[in-house]
Amino acid sequence: MPSPTSSTRSRTKNPGSQSALRHLNQQRIIDCLRSGPSTQAELARQTGLSTATVSNIVKIMQDEGTVSTEPTTSSGRRALNVRLNGNGIVAVGIDFGRRHLRVVLASLGYHVIAEESVLLPLGHHADEGIAAAVALLDRLLEQSGVQRSALVGAGVGIPGPIDRRTGTVAQGAILPEWVGINILEHLEETLKIPVFVDNDANLGALSEVTWGPHGGICNLMFLKIGSGIGAGLILNGAPYYGSVGVTGEIGHATIHEHGLVCRCGNRGCLETIASTTTMIELLSRGENYPLAPGDIVRNALAKDPATLRVVDDAGLAVGRALGNVANLINPEVIVIGGPLAVLGELLLTPVRRGLIRHAVPVIGESTTLTMSSLGERAEALGAAALVFQHAGIRAP
Amino acid sequence: MPSPTSSTRSRTKNPGSQSALRHLNQQRIIDCLRSGPSTQAELARQTGLSTATVSNIVKIMQDEGTVSTEPTTSSGRRALNVRLNGNGIVAVGIDFGRRHLRVVLASLGYHVIAEESVLLPLGHHADEGIAAAVALLDRLLEQSGVQRSALVGAGVGIPGPIDRRTGTVAQGAILPEWVGINILEHLEETLKIPVFVDNDANLGALSEVTWGPHGGICNLMFLKIGSGIGAGLILNGAPYYGSVGVTGEIGHATIHEHGLVCRCGNRGCLETIASTTTMIELLSRGENYPLAPGDIVRNALAKDPATLRVVDDAGLAVGRALGNVANLINPEVIVIGGPLAVLGELLLTPVRRGLIRHAVPVIGESTTLTMSSLGERAEALGAAALVFQHAGIRAP
Repeated sequence: MPSPTSSTRSRTKNPGSQSALRHLNQQRIIDCLRSGPSTQAELARQTGLSTATVSNIVKIMQDEGTVSTEPTTSSGRRALNVRLNGNGIVAVGIDFGRRHLRVVLASLGYHVIAEESVLLPLGHHADEGIAAAVALLDRLLEQSGVQRSALVGAGVGIPGPIDRRTGTVAQGAILPEWVGINILEHLEETLKIPVFVDNDANLGALSEVTWGPHGGICNLMFLKIGSGIGAGLILNGAPYYGSVGVTGEIGHATIHEHGLVCRCGNRGCLETIASTTTMIELLSRGENYPLAPGDIVRNALAKDPATLRVVDDAGLAVGRALGNVANLINPEVIVIGGPLAVLGELLLTPVRRGLIRHAVPVIGESTTLTMSSLGERAEALGAAALVFQHAGIRAP
Repeated sequence: MPSPTSSTRSRTKNPGSQSALRHLNQQRIIDCLRSGPSTQAELARQTGLSTATVSNIVKIMQDEGTVSTEPTTSSGRRALNVRLNGNGIVAVGIDFGRRHLRVVLASLGYHVIAEESVLLPLGHHADEGIAAAVALLDRLLEQSGVQRSALVGAGVGIPGPIDRRTGTVAQGAILPEWVGINILEHLEETLKIPVFVDNDANLGALSEVTWGPHGGICNLMFLKIGSGIGAGLILNGAPYYGSVGVTGEIGHATIHEHGLVCRCGNRGCLETIASTTTMIELLSRGENYPLAPGDIVRNALAKDPATLRVVDDAGLAVGRALGNVANLINPEVIVIGGPLAVLGELLLTPVRRGLIRHAVPVIGESTTLTMSSLGERAEALGAAALVFQHAGIRAP
């Protein structure tokens, strides 16, 4: 859905622009440095860049804390040795949900140093959520012995669209109490490190191609089915943010023209048919207390007929929407995440049936549909990956 | 829809790959050379690239015929002067339709040197179409005095999806007689120049950001409404081809689950509701002969009530499909092309109503919807642009 926004640099990269070229060149320099320290002259030789270009980029990375330099000699001449700030680089990943908060600390090599999640009260305000995140981060730093100075940035996932023109949570978020809040500014003030905010589904997509098994996939869609339904896109090998930063709103694809009224103001949206909220409403009739998403999972795995039917109907509707999406963007892989991912084939089968039914044959046959293996960690891991991406550090 | 395929080089560019970097660097060198010839050393200074990198790229461009070089001296030292083969570079654009063929010759500065279109018999075979294109090209070369040696390549537009894995026209094409044909091989054998094949809607999108008024738009969708309905995508500033090359198949978005059977084998697709074929079927009842697309235009402009109603219904359905598309990829601009584009607001108004009705508010409000100003020339001009794009020559 929304774009990652940060006050420290621009997020959209025109592929032909100077900043895109700088980004590419920086990635190549970092790739060289992963095998060990190197002189600037050696970096120029290995990358094909001029020594002036290498020197400029090294200077910028030094200012950002990504590398450190020290004078040396090479073949009797003065040279500058460049070293990646390996263990000194730690990224924070923060995932805010409707009722949970997860924080991870990740090292340069995409290793998790520390990780913890806590419950948040339903309907909590942004201030409470941010305070809880700061407290949890402090605890993780203390437990793991990581210095605050090692933090290069924090990625933050929000379950709702972010309007990149204003940097605020847009209308239609699953967290209505957060609408209009500039999370970025709030967190940067508190944490004193660069902060990158993105939508949870976008981070899910990023986590699949970095931490997950889909590295190297150029066109991937991550579909999160939860109280809302949203998708994150990796297109042509990069996260895709569209024009104003609100993308992947597949939850508001019209399925029934005159269906139920949706929270977006439209009717018959996919969310009114296939979100966990709708499934819970359908299955809670006659129960003494409303079910939780965990109950859907438990009852489906126990082969409760009504639950299986509701999951099947939801899966078919999701598949229909995915068929239309696949017709448009022809992804190589579609990954389904969210609390129902543990249902595996029980949910995948009807989704696949709907996809094949509604996609044109060549697309239906060639799209891989799979469940996320990252579970509840996908968004927080993706948030940490977002920090590395902006530092030009690719997944190993 | 499909990807441009060519036997001479790979078409997909991973943004981090060596080939993408080479492409970017080549563009920068060409940009420098537009203001006049330059030495290799000067090019290195202006681009920030190493002299070795510049030398390698110049060598490749020389082999491709894009530049020529000659020895010179600079500050008393031997140097190599590089010159863009300006007027010597001509691109051919060929647009095949169900019943027409258009060929253009375009110069480096995106000027049309010669252009002509002819009618083809309905149901013609690929061989006939290709023979007609070759004959028309020969005629244009003779009329304009352009030497065959000046041709750097031919772009070819086809009204149907192309499976990039095989380079052939895929099932579901508007030209069923062309399915399975490898147009690329046929044309390269005959023309003896590099050929790039692409879908007509993709070329429409490319023409809008090169020849048309939308240069600089990073996320644009071109929707062609004709006997079929298909879209071409420019995403993150580049043509988008997806995983197997079949994208933008919005004509097969499901609108009515149990609607009419579509030529794709599905039911209730947008094409069964809003293609010119469907409009003609609806409006030909009681007529002595079937109408042509031109009749729809003429009758709508003459305010014939039944025609206006059919156009309005088609527009609403198109708008609904566009709303779902905009929710997913959040384009900045959607351009509508094809024979009905001349209807202007008569068609745009219902499309806009459908789009606003079905898109989430922030997306509906921020998407620009407009008619193509390139008319019937869009695809052939886009085909010529495709050749320049592959030579690293951007629109002026």
